[in-house]
Amino acid sequence: MLLEYKDLVDLQLQKIIKDNPKLTIYEPIKYIVNLGGKRFRSSLALLSADIFCGNPSLVINEATAIELFHNFTLIHDDIMDEAPLRRGQTAVHKKWDTNTAILSGDLLYALVNKMLASSPVQSSEIHYLFQKTALEVCEGQSMDMAFENQADVSQSDYLEMIKLKTAVLVGCALKIGAIVGGASEKNAQMLYDFGINLGIAFQIHDDILDVFPTKEVFGKQIGGDIIEKKKTILLIDLLEKSTNDEKFSLFKIIDSKNFSDSLKVDKIKEMYKIKNVLETAEKKKIFYFKKALHNIQELEIDLSRKNQLNEFAKNLMSRMY
Amino acid sequence: MLLEYKDLVDLQLQKIIKDNPKLTIYEPIKYIVNLGGKRFRSSLALLSADIFCGNPSLVINEATAIELFHNFTLIHDDIMDEAPLRRGQTAVHKKWDTNTAILSGDLLYALVNKMLASSPVQSSEIHYLFQKTALEVCEGQSMDMAFENQADVSQSDYLEMIKLKTAVLVGCALKIGAIVGGASEKNAQMLYDFGINLGIAFQIHDDILDVFPTKEVFGKQIGGDIIEKKKTILLIDLLEKSTNDEKFSLFKIIDSKNFSDSLKVDKIKEMYKIKNVLETAEKKKIFYFKKALHNIQELEIDLSRKNQLNEFAKNLMSRMY
Repeated sequence: MLLEYKDLVDLQLQKIIKDNPKLTIYEPIKYIVNLGGKRFRSSLALLSADIFCGNPSLVINEATAIELFHNFTLIHDDIMDEAPLRRGQTAVHKKWDTNTAILSGDLLYALVNKMLASSPVQSSEIHYLFQKTALEVCEGQSMDMAFENQADVSQSDYLEMIKLKTAVLVGCALKIGAIVGGASEKNAQMLYDFGINLGIAFQIHDDILDVFPTKEVFGKQIGGDIIEKKKTILLIDLLEKSTNDEKFSLFKIIDSKNFSDSLKVDKIKEMYKIKNVLETAEKKKIFYFKKALHNIQELEIDLSRKNQLNEFAKNLMSRMY
Repeated sequence: MLLEYKDLVDLQLQKIIKDNPKLTIYEPIKYIVNLGGKRFRSSLALLSADIFCGNPSLVINEATAIELFHNFTLIHDDIMDEAPLRRGQTAVHKKWDTNTAILSGDLLYALVNKMLASSPVQSSEIHYLFQKTALEVCEGQSMDMAFENQADVSQSDYLEMIKLKTAVLVGCALKIGAIVGGASEKNAQMLYDFGINLGIAFQIHDDILDVFPTKEVFGKQIGGDIIEKKKTILLIDLLEKSTNDEKFSLFKIIDSKNFSDSLKVDKIKEMYKIKNVLETAEKKKIFYFKKALHNIQELEIDLSRKNQLNEFAKNLMSRMY
């Protein structure tokens, strides 16, 4: 999956965390950055710049800032979700404590903003797009949290939530790369739309893999979303297909204090199978993925570049856990 | 205290919180903004712009952004300090919950950044100064937190901490006002230094008032810093003046689980009196306040404007609670 871009990002990330002062509050930041990750948001920014100007490095600061912003949201989301693990390792708020996780997250976001403010690329359009996106990501997280205590979440509420929480940052990465690369407004906007559709498909894929991983991985909790009472596409579809009695027993399982986590997951998974929710989710995922592929076709760029974007998108969606 | 500037800021703050979407996550933001405050950081930005161009409104977006950034830090600091009250009212994390306080704080910081990115004033120097300052404020808070579990905090450690946690944002507000007003580099830097010195004097004053308020106010907890184990200038001086035996009994009181909060405060206050720590703190405060007044004299501006800055500084330092 375009490893040369990931390598560029990883190199830059290492530089940034090496440069930081000796204050202990920087330790959780080093830790989460070193947990790795696909770096697909930043890789997309580099690819996008590469397409239009042949020089991905021009957008390296913005790409890395986007990756670090994503890591900031992970630190804070894990506190809010009481998630014990991140990428199979202890989450920051568990390895340190909640206060350290709050503050290291705040500091990371401030570091991101300082990076953007001192980047050789200075464009009001980029600053505005990035900060508008940051605000939307927080709004998306607030919807996700609110949904946990809300019985009647519709599919369109869900789609709006994942658009804000996940997809806009993917679109933002691509559009910033395009702007820096000197793309036309039409191409830049089309890449943004591609990012939105790919981001939505990616999040649905993520919801599915949480319960039905194609490959089981050490340190990865199966059904974490069920335990955290997340309103995923699967749970929303199950609720829509259930009678009131079925809903009642479903919530009894999820809210039960007697059942173990793995028993809860097994029971809900069984319900998912009975109601064919996997098929519905797959269909929805493919719908948005096809929209994303269509966006690629609409771009006014070389065929070889279109193939590159296609390959990237397909690789992203074929991950198994 | 230059009320016309405060009124301008309050008006703008009301506009901003009125414009926001219907999501419930905006409620804590409205709440904390409506708790009021002196708005002295933003007022200083307006005064500074007024001095150099006669039009304080030119910097209203940046001034309001600085005030909202300050409010973001208050929301998160209150979680970390487990502070039950803010401005005599229930703190956000108590009125709602910790997760809501984390996320509404994040969202507020993102809102601040979006405001700055869409302001008519677009200057790389201002963006960089603001974000560098934001990072320093987080670093200062991390030092403050670390000091709670550190027995040997020196006066210079303390001064560095309050410089970062409090003073740099005051300096930043003044310098941004100066830049927008078209000040010379020398004047802008001198106002920054004035802000640093005033900010340090202000924080020492705040440390003193926490234990020795000149006027008791309903809803204001006396000795909150003692209960939160804060290494204030008073406690650091007391520790420096104490024998090992005295230090031992001091920590026994602060860490005691049997003493009520008010008993702890009374006992530590008694020690403060015996060791004359109030006098030392007052001297330090006056030292920085005089440095600030000296900075005013060094400015190349009209005498009437110098008098205005003098008056502002004196009013700020004469508050009684």
